[in-house]
Amino acid sequence: MKKNFKLTLEYDGTEYSGWQVQNNSPTIQGEIENALGLMLDQPIRIWGSGRTDAGVHALAQVANFQASTSMGQSQLKKGLNSLLKGPIVVHECTEVDEAFHARYNAREKEYHYFFLNRELPCAVGRNFVWHIRHPLKIDAMEECCRIITGTHDFKAFEGAGSPRSTTVRTLFLAGFEKTAKDRFYFKIRGNGFLRFMVRNIVGTLVLAGAGKITPIDFRKILQGRDRSLAGPTAPAKGLFLMKVSY
Amino acid sequence: MKKNFKLTLEYDGTEYSGWQVQNNSPTIQGEIENALGLMLDQPIRIWGSGRTDAGVHALAQVANFQASTSMGQSQLKKGLNSLLKGPIVVHECTEVDEAFHARYNAREKEYHYFFLNRELPCAVGRNFVWHIRHPLKIDAMEECCRIITGTHDFKAFEGAGSPRSTTVRTLFLAGFEKTAKDRFYFKIRGNGFLRFMVRNIVGTLVLAGAGKITPIDFRKILQGRDRSLAGPTAPAKGLFLMKVSY
Repeated sequence: MKKNFKLTLEYDGTEYSGWQVQNNSPTIQGEIENALGLMLDQPIRIWGSGRTDAGVHALAQVANFQASTSMGQSQLKKGLNSLLKGPIVVHECTEVDEAFHARYNAREKEYHYFFLNRELPCAVGRNFVWHIRHPLKIDAMEECCRIITGTHDFKAFEGAGSPRSTTVRTLFLAGFEKTAKDRFYFKIRGNGFLRFMVRNIVGTLVLAGAGKITPIDFRKILQGRDRSLAGPTAPAKGLFLMKVSY
Repeated sequence: MKKNFKLTLEYDGTEYSGWQVQNNSPTIQGEIENALGLMLDQPIRIWGSGRTDAGVHALAQVANFQASTSMGQSQLKKGLNSLLKGPIVVHECTEVDEAFHARYNAREKEYHYFFLNRELPCAVGRNFVWHIRHPLKIDAMEECCRIITGTHDFKAFEGAGSPRSTTVRTLFLAGFEKTAKDRFYFKIRGNGFLRFMVRNIVGTLVLAGAGKITPIDFRKILQGRDRSLAGPTAPAKGLFLMKVSY
């Protein structure tokens, strides 16, 4: 009988080609599967709550895997942390019901996107913020947040190459939090996200913050369901997967 | 007539072999001298307020250099920032009196040393904190801080290989600031610091925090003027040069 384990993971995505296993480039999934394979002496497949892109970080990504093992949850956590080191840390490892699936059972996800808004970039922490030189008007961006909150068709913010049965999603929360004179972050929580959806929303919000589009334009972009009308994809480095709820 | 420029610098020291120029390894001083040499088409020597060790960071290191140039301070700052990118940022460039010397005129320096004190390490920001697993008693460490505050002979905390005319220094401030349940930093300000002095003090404070020595032992270590009695040198990555006053 296989056991099913749930992992809660923090990672610095800077030097990874994202979550999903690839040939010849390091990925979060790949590193964890390799470590588990070594420890358990069997091929292991882990399922993430979703795939984070190259350069995206996580404070609490959730994954699960099944394995035939006599090892317990705390032994697995210790073993993984001693093999992984550095950019990936396992915060929790819990044995769960065999039916638990990190991707299919996810009900809600929360992301934060961090900004540094001043003339000069930073050196320390530069891989964890989007540095924007021109002043952004948070009021205008907040107004756009009110437009996307709720249930909408988010096709305008979907990245190419990822056909879904539906592009309708529900956002429970979208807004900004200021943490210093020149620092703030965007907070977004929803029942699911399309490919590049957070980064495409952020890229479009920034157009509104810079005064290049109005909140009325923003509403038209959402309603137009056409990716080519929305703003550019924001850089990966500012984005953190903060929480997955089940 | 040469002009004299004062620079205020932020850097992420993670991938540098410290401040001071070396053959065949990247240093902060080396990168800045190369960039200035390129821009000004003449060999440039910069003087830092002091040398930071490999892996040590700075939010506001100060340096100066002299050059024959028609360029002004803001042109130099822009040019440097566009050549340097990434781990080094020039926050200020000001033309100063020819007598100004970043090292000899420094009156006071402030360093912060950051801790993560919990069982698990962090992934994000791991190059900017010392992760210590066992709980540290901040009260005991604060008591030791009161012992070193003021004017003392700090020979016990001096790294080898750096003969000085005197090992007496004055600390205006030494103490801890808590920023989260499991995060705090050590704050130290003085009129000058011996080689490895901050990191050796931190390493010894941690012994007191762990209950391996008492504040009375700590006082004896200071008074003994013998490096071999003090604690180990704390890792470089937790240390930030925060401010230099003139």
